[in-house]
Amino acid sequence: DHVPFVPPRYSEAESIERARSFFKLMNGRRSVRFFSPDPIPDQVLEDIVRTAGTSPSGAHTEPWTFVVVKSADIKAEIREIIEAEERINYERRMGDQWVKDLAALRTDWVKPYLETAPALIIVFKQTYGIKPNGKRQTHYYHEISTSIASGLLIAAIHNAGLATLTSTPMNAGPRLRALLGRPENEKVLLLLPVGYPADDCTVPDLQRKPLDQIMVTI
Amino acid sequence: DHVPFVPPRYSEAESIERARSFFKLMNGRRSVRFFSPDPIPDQVLEDIVRTAGTSPSGAHTEPWTFVVVKSADIKAEIREIIEAEERINYERRMGDQWVKDLAALRTDWVKPYLETAPALIIVFKQTYGIKPNGKRQTHYYHEISTSIASGLLIAAIHNAGLATLTSTPMNAGPRLRALLGRPENEKVLLLLPVGYPADDCTVPDLQRKPLDQIMVTI
Ligand SMILES: Cc1cc2nc3c(=O)[nH]c(=O)nc-3n(C[C@H](O)[C@H](O)[C@H](O)COP(=O)(O)O)c2cc1C
Ligand SMILES: Cc1cc2nc3c(=O)[nH]c(=O)nc-3n(C[C@H](O)[C@H](O)[C@H](O)COP(=O)(O)O)c2cc1C
Repeated sequence: DHVPFVPPRYSEAESIERARSFFKLMNGRRSVRFFSPDPIPDQVLEDIVRTAGTSPSGAHTEPWTFVVVKSADIKAEIREIIEAEERINYERRMGDQWVKDLAALRTDWVKPYLETAPALIIVFKQTYGIKPNGKRQTHYYHEISTSIASGLLIAAIHNAGLATLTSTPMNAGPRLRALLGRPENEKVLLLLPVGYPADDCTVPDLQRKPLDQIMVTI
Repeated sequence: DHVPFVPPRYSEAESIERARSFFKLMNGRRSVRFFSPDPIPDQVLEDIVRTAGTSPSGAHTEPWTFVVVKSADIKAEIREIIEAEERINYERRMGDQWVKDLAALRTDWVKPYLETAPALIIVFKQTYGIKPNGKRQTHYYHEISTSIASGLLIAAIHNAGLATLTSTPMNAGPRLRALLGRPENEKVLLLLPVGYPADDCTVPDLQRKPLDQIMVTI
């Protein structure tokens, strides 16, 4: 039950060039909070989810479900649920320090992009699986695995020329799960609107840490 | 402090083609446990870590450190630490069900690849940050953010024609942190050997779930 694995081997020069151009591509990614309503091809949505599905996972459990919402009605209901919770997060629940830490991003509880973006991808982690015999299957490291898969999803979205926002719908998970009819073993991990940026899209003027602040060589 | 964001916009056909070819590329990835000792260019190592550093992160905290170990002595010490813990995991700590769940992968506690691979990347999540004034900075969602960054790292490694194994050095985190001299706020999340697969590399004959088992459209 083991098979040979012989991937293509590039020359050193090719490898250096591929690593550089993929970095440049990914470095052009930004989280977008202002979307165009322009539709996006279904094939692209499918292939970006397929790409996420190539992710490694603890003991090959593939503990993820990607719910793609295109329905305007359901998007509106999602917006209502999230804004109600976010309003409480901003005004009462999370406290001054949290609000201060987010100030540079100029985010608030009003989130029109949840309706403007042509699709929302709600990423569920499966906290356990169900075996053919009905017993529970342990999903080792389900949150880490599903987050890694989301990294591939984000790369695939950007590579296709689309934009997204990685977001965590705080405290809205149970209501979203009910709305989307997902089973008990699934929990909302992330919500990613997908589409083209609005023509007048702006983003916070952030810098990324230079290499010497994130890499140590021994 | 907001700036315009105008990424390149591809035609629909280009977008479809880019999404498909990135899926095909990533679908060729497998976790490798048999490495060639062939060296890999430093520039490639640097650019794959740079790529991980483009990841989104909760409140832009960038809560990650990538420790790249090339030293043969330190790789040998890492192997010793991990094998000692893994032997306990397999023989006593984790129980029969865990051992059974891993049987298809034919993994065990002996891990020569920790010395054979030319580099090991140990991914640390920073559970909190330290502000210029010495106070603690909350790192919202540090594990999810660092896992997403690891997804980009894995994509970058594969794109460059190199192989890796996503692994969780269970129970070895504190000793690895001490060995690598990382501060108290950092915890080991993953360890990824990086290199070329061995000439006779084999992988478990696994299938991935088809799209209709991981995607739901509403
Ligand atoms: C969070 C996580 C932890 C993992 N831990 C280990 C590990 O400790 N040892 C190991 O051999 N493989 C580990 N794997 C690799 C998985 O077994 C592998 O991804 C899975 O079998 C699917 O194979 P593929 O990556 O070739 O598609 C881990 C993967 C993930 C995502
Ligand atoms: C785990 C995680 C949770 C996030 N949650 C939110 C969120 O709820 N709302 C939001 O506007 N941005 C959220 N973000 C986006 C970050 O604010 C953004 O990635 C960061 O500011 C860096 O900007 P960039 O992605 O453009 O590089 C989140 C990002 C991550 C990785």
